[in-house]
Amino acid sequence: MLHQALLNPRRIALIGASTDAARLTARAQLYLRRHGFAGELFPVNPRAADVLGERAYPSLRDVPGDIDFAYVLVNTAAVEAAIEACAERRVPVACVLADGFAEAGQEGLALQRRVLAAAHGGGVRLLGPNSMGIVNVPAATACSVNAALEAERLIPGRWSLVSHSGSVMGTLLSRAAARGFGFAKMIGTGNEADLTAGEIASLLVDDPETDAILLFLETIRRPELYEEAARRAHAAGKPIIAYKLGRSEAGAALATTHTGAIAGSDAATDAFLRACGIARVDMLETLLELPPLLLGARPAAVPKRAVRVVTTTGGGGAMVVDRLGTLGIATARMTDTTLAGARKDSVAAALNEARAAGDCDVAVAVIGSSAQFRPQDAVAGVLASQGPRPLAAFLLPQADASLQLLAEAGVAAFRTPEACADAVRSFLDWRAPRALPEPGDMSAVQALLPAPDEPRARAVFAALGLADAAVAVDPAAPPTLRYPVALKAVSAEIAHKTEAGAVVLNVPDETALRAACAEMRARLGSRISGFIAQPMVRGVAEAILGYRRDPLVGPVIALGAGGVLAEVYRDVVLRMAPVSAAEAMEMIAEVKGLAPARGYRNLPKGDLAALAQAVADLSRLAALPDVREAEVNPLIVLQEGQGVVMADALLSTGREDASGTAACHTSGHEEWPLV
Amino acid sequence: MLHQALLNPRRIALIGASTDAARLTARAQLYLRRHGFAGELFPVNPRAADVLGERAYPSLRDVPGDIDFAYVLVNTAAVEAAIEACAERRVPVACVLADGFAEAGQEGLALQRRVLAAAHGGGVRLLGPNSMGIVNVPAATACSVNAALEAERLIPGRWSLVSHSGSVMGTLLSRAAARGFGFAKMIGTGNEADLTAGEIASLLVDDPETDAILLFLETIRRPELYEEAARRAHAAGKPIIAYKLGRSEAGAALATTHTGAIAGSDAATDAFLRACGIARVDMLETLLELPPLLLGARPAAVPKRAVRVVTTTGGGGAMVVDRLGTLGIATARMTDTTLAGARKDSVAAALNEARAAGDCDVAVAVIGSSAQFRPQDAVAGVLASQGPRPLAAFLLPQADASLQLLAEAGVAAFRTPEACADAVRSFLDWRAPRALPEPGDMSAVQALLPAPDEPRARAVFAALGLADAAVAVDPAAPPTLRYPVALKAVSAEIAHKTEAGAVVLNVPDETALRAACAEMRARLGSRISGFIAQPMVRGVAEAILGYRRDPLVGPVIALGAGGVLAEVYRDVVLRMAPVSAAEAMEMIAEVKGLAPARGYRNLPKGDLAALAQAVADLSRLAALPDVREAEVNPLIVLQEGQGVVMADALLSTGREDASGTAACHTSGHEEWPLV
Repeated sequence: MLHQALLNPRRIALIGASTDAARLTARAQLYLRRHGFAGELFPVNPRAADVLGERAYPSLRDVPGDIDFAYVLVNTAAVEAAIEACAERRVPVACVLADGFAEAGQEGLALQRRVLAAAHGGGVRLLGPNSMGIVNVPAATACSVNAALEAERLIPGRWSLVSHSGSVMGTLLSRAAARGFGFAKMIGTGNEADLTAGEIASLLVDDPETDAILLFLETIRRPELYEEAARRAHAAGKPIIAYKLGRSEAGAALATTHTGAIAGSDAATDAFLRACGIARVDMLETLLELPPLLLGARPAAVPKRAVRVVTTTGGGGAMVVDRLGTLGIATARMTDTTLAGARKDSVAAALNEARAAGDCDVAVAVIGSSAQFRPQDAVAGVLASQGPRPLAAFLLPQADASLQLLAEAGVAAFRTPEACADAVRSFLDWRAPRALPEPGDMSAVQALLPAPDEPRARAVFAALGLADAAVAVDPAAPPTLRYPVALKAVSAEIAHKTEAGAVVLNVPDETALRAACAEMRARLGSRISGFIAQPMVRGVAEAILGYRRDPLVGPVIALGAGGVLAEVYRDVVLRMAPVSAAEAMEMIAEVKGLAPARGYRNLPKGDLAALAQAVADLSRLAALPDVREAEVNPLIVLQEGQGVVMADALLSTGREDASGTAACHTSGHEEWPLV
Repeated sequence: MLHQALLNPRRIALIGASTDAARLTARAQLYLRRHGFAGELFPVNPRAADVLGERAYPSLRDVPGDIDFAYVLVNTAAVEAAIEACAERRVPVACVLADGFAEAGQEGLALQRRVLAAAHGGGVRLLGPNSMGIVNVPAATACSVNAALEAERLIPGRWSLVSHSGSVMGTLLSRAAARGFGFAKMIGTGNEADLTAGEIASLLVDDPETDAILLFLETIRRPELYEEAARRAHAAGKPIIAYKLGRSEAGAALATTHTGAIAGSDAATDAFLRACGIARVDMLETLLELPPLLLGARPAAVPKRAVRVVTTTGGGGAMVVDRLGTLGIATARMTDTTLAGARKDSVAAALNEARAAGDCDVAVAVIGSSAQFRPQDAVAGVLASQGPRPLAAFLLPQADASLQLLAEAGVAAFRTPEACADAVRSFLDWRAPRALPEPGDMSAVQALLPAPDEPRARAVFAALGLADAAVAVDPAAPPTLRYPVALKAVSAEIAHKTEAGAVVLNVPDETALRAACAEMRARLGSRISGFIAQPMVRGVAEAILGYRRDPLVGPVIALGAGGVLAEVYRDVVLRMAPVSAAEAMEMIAEVKGLAPARGYRNLPKGDLAALAQAVADLSRLAALPDVREAEVNPLIVLQEGQGVVMADALLSTGREDASGTAACHTSGHEEWPLV
C-alpha cells in the first residue's frame, strides 16, 4: 500500500547515510532517532560497517527483508544507480534528496527521466528529487534532513502539510510549534518527477489522522490529481488549503502574447483552485491560521461577503473592518463591548447574536489588552459562543497564551488584522468543487476541425451555439446584405488584417462592396482566399471572450471588457472550462468594465443572458483536446433581447508533440481597431 | 516648556485617583509606581486622605507647588470642573481619560468645546479627551491606564509612538516587547481637542531620546502641524512613519458624489503623507519593523523600484520576490547562496555586492532554517555586510533570537514575507517633503471669483493658464467659428445639461447653430442666460482633471482618464496642490488609463507636456481658500504639440461658515456624454 509505505514506513533504508554527524546526509538518521522512531533503520554505506552507532550495510542488496521506504541521500551523479538498486529490491517508495535534476536544465531533466524510468521499471514510486522527505509525527517518524527537526520535540496535530519547498516545510513546522501546535504528516515533494502534491493529498484524504490538508505550491503538476483529491476531500469534510507562489508572474505572462493577456497562468491557477474547491490564502501565516475556520464549515453557495465584528476595543475593531473593506468585504455591524469590558457573558451574547444573524457569513471577535495578561478571561466569551456561522478571532496585543487557548479549542485565531482579513476573504472565495455542465454532442464541432481560417472558426463557434452574422461574399455575385457592412478578406496568411488593409468598415452599398473587394484582391493577391461581410452594428458594450488550455491547469475560459482601456486595466475574469450559463453570469458580474452593459449610470443594458450563453457555449471546447485556443474579440453585446455579435473569431488547433512544439493550425488572426 | 511638561513631567497630579486598586482609575498610580517613577505624585480624591498608600489631596488647590501634568481620571460629567481647577492652578498640561465627548455626538462635542475653552482660559494644553496618557520609558514615567503596563518591566528604546487609539498603544508596546525592544515615549492623543499627533511629533523631533517617530492615526486634524513636523524631522534625519486607518472608506467616499469619485479622502490622505515626507505602512507590524530601514537612509528622488535578493533558501526567496512583484517592485537579481550554506563570508559578500549595485534601491536578505537554532551563525553574514544601499532581512522560520540580534544591530528584520514587501514598498514610496512651486500672482484669478457659470469657470481656468477654445455665441450675430462645433446653453440652474437637452454636438454650420439656439431658447426659456460654442475636436485621449479642498488634509489635485470605464476602474492619481509641471508628469505616468496617450501599442501620443502644464495650472487654485472645487471633465488631450482642450469646466466657491454649511457658488455642472 502506497499510503503506508510513503506516510508510515516501518522499515527505512538510508542510502548514503554519512558517518559524519555534522553532514546534511547524517541528519535523517539523527532526526529519526531523536524523535523516537520505533521501526527499523538500515543505513547503507559501502565504506563503513557502523554509521553513527548503528549497523550499516554495504549495499541495499545486503539489507535483510522488505524495505518500505528508501531515502536516497547520495549526490546527484549517484542517484540513478541507487534507484536501480531500489528497483531491484522492489522498494515501494524511494525519496531522493539531491537536486540538480529537472530544475537545473536539459541535462538534469534527462537524468531525471532516466531515474524515473528506472524507478517505474521496478515498481518504485518516486518522491522528489529535491525532496525534504517525510515526517509522521504521531508515528515518531522524522525521515527528513530539515533543520527544523533540531527541535527538542515535535507536537502532534490533526493537519497535514504537503510542500514543494523543503525549507518552507521547516518554516511552517517552526511557526506552528511557536503557537503550541503541530502536524500529523509533512511531505516534501520537490521536483515531483512522479508523486505530486495532488496525489499525496488524495492519500491524506484517506488518512484517519488528518483533518485538514495544507499545500505549499510552487507550481501545479497533474492537475487532475488535485481535482480528484479535492472532490474526495470535500465529500469527506476535510478542507484543502493552498498557498501558491507565482501571483506576480501573471504580470509577466500578460505582457507576452495577446491571448496570454487573457489567461495569465496565475489567474488560471486561481480559477483552477476555485473549481477544485481548494481554498487559497494570500499570506503565508494564513495557511496556518485558516484551517479552524473551514473545519466543520461548508463553502457558501452565494456568500454575502459580509461579517459582523464584536470587539472589546474600538481601535482594534476598526483595523479589521478597514482591512476587510479593502478586500471588498462589508461589515454588517460592529458591536463594541468596551463598556461591558471583556466579560464573558456580554462577549458570548454578542457573538451568538452575530453568528445567528442572516446578514453575514462570518463573525469576527476582536480581543484587546486582556488577551495579554488574562488569557483565560480574555478568551472565555469567545469559547462560550455558539452559532451556525463560523467564528474568527483577532488578538490585538502579543498574546501567545490566548492564541494557544483558542487554537486548542479549535477557534481560528489570528496574530494580525491582515491575516484575519485574508482568512475571511479566503473562506468567502471558497467554493464547493465544480459541477461540470454536460458537454453535449461535440461530433459536429469536431468535424469542423482543424480550422485554419476565420470562416471555419466562425463555423466552429456557430456549431457550439454562437450566432454568426457573417456571410461569404462572392464579389461577382454578392449576397443580399443589410448595409452598411464590415468587409474582411479571408486569409490564413495575414495575421494583422487591419494593418494589412484587409478590413473595410462601414461599406455603404453593393457598389462599394464590389469596389472594395476588387481593390483588396488587386493589392493582396493570392494571400487572400475569399471575403466575408457582416452588417455593422452598434452595441452597448464590447467584450473579449477567450478560451485556452493553460499549460499548468488545462482548459480555461476568460471574459473581459473589450477595448484598449480594458486591456490596460487587465480586467479579465477566468474560470475553468466548461462553465454553465449561470456561472458565466457570475463571471459577467465580476468584470468591472462590463458595468455599462449592466446598466451602470442608467446606461442601456446589454443582452447579458446572450453573453452568458456565448461564454458557456465557447467553454464547451474543453471537451476537444485538439483545440488550443479560441477567441472572439470583440464580441459585441447588443441591447437586452438582441443578442451578441462576433466581430472577429480566432481558433487554433493541434496538440503539442513530444518535443514540446506544436503542430498547429490557426485561423488568420486580426486585430480589431482599438484592441 | 510644553516638551518637558507633556513628555517628562516630574510633578504629576492624578485627579480622581481611585482607592480601589481593581479600578481603571487606580491604574495610573499603580503603573507609575510599578515602573519606578522617581518624581512626585499627587493623588486628588475628595473622599480619602490616603490613596493606595500615598497621601491624597481633597482638591487640586490643596496640592503644594507647581504641577507639570494633571491626569484627569474623573468621569465625563466631572471633567469640566476638573479642567477649570487645572486652569486655576495654571497646570501646563492636562490629560483627560474619559470618553463621551466629540465622538459621542452633538452634546459631547459641546461639552468638549467648553472643556477646551476652560483649558485655554488658564493656559492649559489639553491631551485628549479619550486619551491613554503618556509613557516616558527612560524617565520611568508610566502615566497611563493602559493594561499593557502590567508588564514586569518596560524596555527602553529610541523610537517614540503617538497613537490616536489607546488600545493600539498597548498593542504595539506588547508586540515590540516580544521582540526585545521598546520605545522612548508613547503618547495617546484620543480626540485631540487641542494637542494633535502632528504637534506632538514636532516635540519629538526636538527630543534627544527619539530617533524615529511612529504614528497610529485614525484621522488627520490640523494637517499643517504634521507638515511642519515632517519638514523638521526630515532636516533632523528622523523618519516619521504612519499607519493610518480609513483605507476602505475611499470606496464609500467614491460612491457619494461625482467629484468625491476623484478625491476620496483616503487617496487625499495618502497624497498628503507623501507630500509631507511621512512614510506610510499598509500592515500593522510593518510599523514596528520599518524604522531601521529608514534610519540613516534618505528618500530616493527617483527610485528604481527594484531590489536584489540574497537568499539561503530558494523557496523563501521566491516568496519575497513574488510578494514584491504583486506590489509592482522588480527583483533585479536573486542570488541563492544555498550551496555556500548560511556561511558568513559568502552571505556578506553577496549582500555587499547587492548593496553596491546600481540596479536596485534595497538589498533583501532571506535567511532560512539556520535562523531558528543557530541565530549567531545565521545573522553573522547580514551583520557583517556593508554598502550604500539599505538592507532588509526576512527570516523564514520562527526565529525570535535572530530577530532580536538583528533588531539590536539596527537591521530591519521581518517576520513575514508580506511585511517585508510592505516595508520595501513603503520605503520606495517615501519622498522628501515637497518643494512647493511658486503660486504666482493670483490677483487676476481672484478677481474673477465667485464664478457661478461655465463661462466664468472657463475664464478662471484661462487666467490660470489653460487655453479656452470656447466663445460666447450671440444667436443674432454668431461669431466666426470653425465648424462643426459643440454648442451649449449657459445656465446656473441646469445641473445635467446633456439630459436637459442643453448641449448639441456636431453642429455643422451657422444656420444649424442659429436653429439650435432658437430651439433651446424656446424649450428652456429663462433658465438659460446665454450660449457658448467651441470647435469639435478629436483627441487621442480624454482626461478628468479635478481640484478640491479635502476636508481633512486640504487642497488636492486629481488626474484620471476620462470616460465611463476609467470611472468604473477608479483610476485616479492624487497629489497635494499645488504641483509643478514635473510632478504633474509623474502623475500622468501613474494613470493607467492614459496609457494610450503615452503611446501604448503604438497609438498616437498625446500632448503630455500640455496636459502636465494644465494640471500644474489648475493646482494653483490652492492659493485661493475661497475655491472649494474645480473640475475639467473631460479635458481632451490632442496629439503631441497640439495642446489640450477643455470640453467642460466646473468651479465651486465659498467657504464653510461656522455651522458647517457652505455659502457656495457653483458653476452649472453638466455631464458630458459617457461621464
